[in-house]
Amino acid sequence: MTAFRLFWADEGGLPADDRGVAYGDGLFETIRMAGQKGVLLSRHLERMVRDAQRLGINVTRKDLANVCLEATQRFGERFGEEGWILKLVLTRGSGGRGYRPDPGMEPHLLVAGSPLPPMPDNSGVVVDFSKVPLSVNPLLAGIKSLNRMEQVLAAAELGPSLFEVVMADRDGNLVEGTRANLLLRQGGSWVTPPASSLAVAGVLRQWVLERLRQRGEPVVERPVTVEDVLGPDCQGLFLMNSVLGIVPVRTIAGHDLPVDTGLATIFNPLETLE
Amino acid sequence: MTAFRLFWADEGGLPADDRGVAYGDGLFETIRMAGQKGVLLSRHLERMVRDAQRLGINVTRKDLANVCLEATQRFGERFGEEGWILKLVLTRGSGGRGYRPDPGMEPHLLVAGSPLPPMPDNSGVVVDFSKVPLSVNPLLAGIKSLNRMEQVLAAAELGPSLFEVVMADRDGNLVEGTRANLLLRQGGSWVTPPASSLAVAGVLRQWVLERLRQRGEPVVERPVTVEDVLGPDCQGLFLMNSVLGIVPVRTIAGHDLPVDTGLATIFNPLETLE
Repeated sequence: MTAFRLFWADEGGLPADDRGVAYGDGLFETIRMAGQKGVLLSRHLERMVRDAQRLGINVTRKDLANVCLEATQRFGERFGEEGWILKLVLTRGSGGRGYRPDPGMEPHLLVAGSPLPPMPDNSGVVVDFSKVPLSVNPLLAGIKSLNRMEQVLAAAELGPSLFEVVMADRDGNLVEGTRANLLLRQGGSWVTPPASSLAVAGVLRQWVLERLRQRGEPVVERPVTVEDVLGPDCQGLFLMNSVLGIVPVRTIAGHDLPVDTGLATIFNPLETLE
Repeated sequence: MTAFRLFWADEGGLPADDRGVAYGDGLFETIRMAGQKGVLLSRHLERMVRDAQRLGINVTRKDLANVCLEATQRFGERFGEEGWILKLVLTRGSGGRGYRPDPGMEPHLLVAGSPLPPMPDNSGVVVDFSKVPLSVNPLLAGIKSLNRMEQVLAAAELGPSLFEVVMADRDGNLVEGTRANLLLRQGGSWVTPPASSLAVAGVLRQWVLERLRQRGEPVVERPVTVEDVLGPDCQGLFLMNSVLGIVPVRTIAGHDLPVDTGLATIFNPLETLE
């Protein structure tokens, strides 16, 4: 018996009184799959279990892993050889009195499969600074919750020639893209905003930081400013996202950046399938 | 033809790819009904239309009003004489590329009826300060969006003997309860946090401020501190919510406040039915 109620997206949606619909009371994972395996799959599942706990939603990794296996059987063939996207939406379930959750509610898990999105090539992407500020509540920092209105508003700025926008917090520090974390190369060091400041702490970000440290490279977690990115010491800016990989930025706000494709080679998504 | 796709909650939920479920990409209204009429109904519909526009979701007041009429026929008898709650959930619809919405998407409207919640009596309620800070993005200030994770976390602090908690922003200013706006009586003036600082700008708040000003009473919109509430000049603290009415606070964080029930008499929900 699983400890959640399971909904397959190809059979219908969540119930009308689901708290994910009502309040965004839940979280999600978007996992790049190939065959029966997923890119950084255990990190995705561990993040969902850990962040669900922070929100008071109980789910076990084992139950999630079983659903992923079922999902590969259900969706794997449909999307063919090149891979596909598995999306897990975990909500607190139905019920409660208004915002107030009841203790011991049965969570809902909505499972969907979709084709891979178009992938950027290695020559680097064009990005801009977003006009939408990011307000990160410390209690929700890093959690991939269903409260993503800010990312939606910022993503409305994107277009065919604008791959991503970078959002800043109230103090003007650059935090992340709508769907990717940031990594800056500066003075021979790697710099990235600290996890406590992030709206979403990506699993690829954590993997890359660990890998760089294993290789003995200097990694600094500190606030990143516009001047860091546009200044003469910037040796490159990268977007990180476990579906897209490590994507170098070629131009930001009309300003050309050095493009180093070397970093992309340390992460080959297909080598992290598990 | 309505400009949205209509879903009755008693027939099922929203589709699995609805953006309200995925990102909280939408907004809602909770309206106290009696017979075929609603408390401050036009203000509720006007707020939904206006805030939807701020989010880039197009809906007309006329279409919403028609749905409300249908809803009274559908739910009105079921919940009897004492009244009931009409909930409208308006989402951007299905589709888009990840966070990025497509232009011209067809919104979804989910319509639900439920019984009235228990009402507090006039003797005043017990509240506390919440441990959950409120992070209000200026672009979303006042909007009753579906991104309500902060209110859910704060509401988890409520219990049988704790009616509401008051949330403060990052600077420590008191902003609002999980489901009610604040009004303070101090030195013969009415004081309330400014609309630009609010997570949700309630329709009753606006109605009360207008009514007080019409009566020539001094009304000040400025940040409210803990000292304002606990200090010797506090002549009373009130919660405002169009379902519950104007509710005096008897005790906050163990500190007794003067209870003035006079204000409650200026708002009789049943006299604002329309």
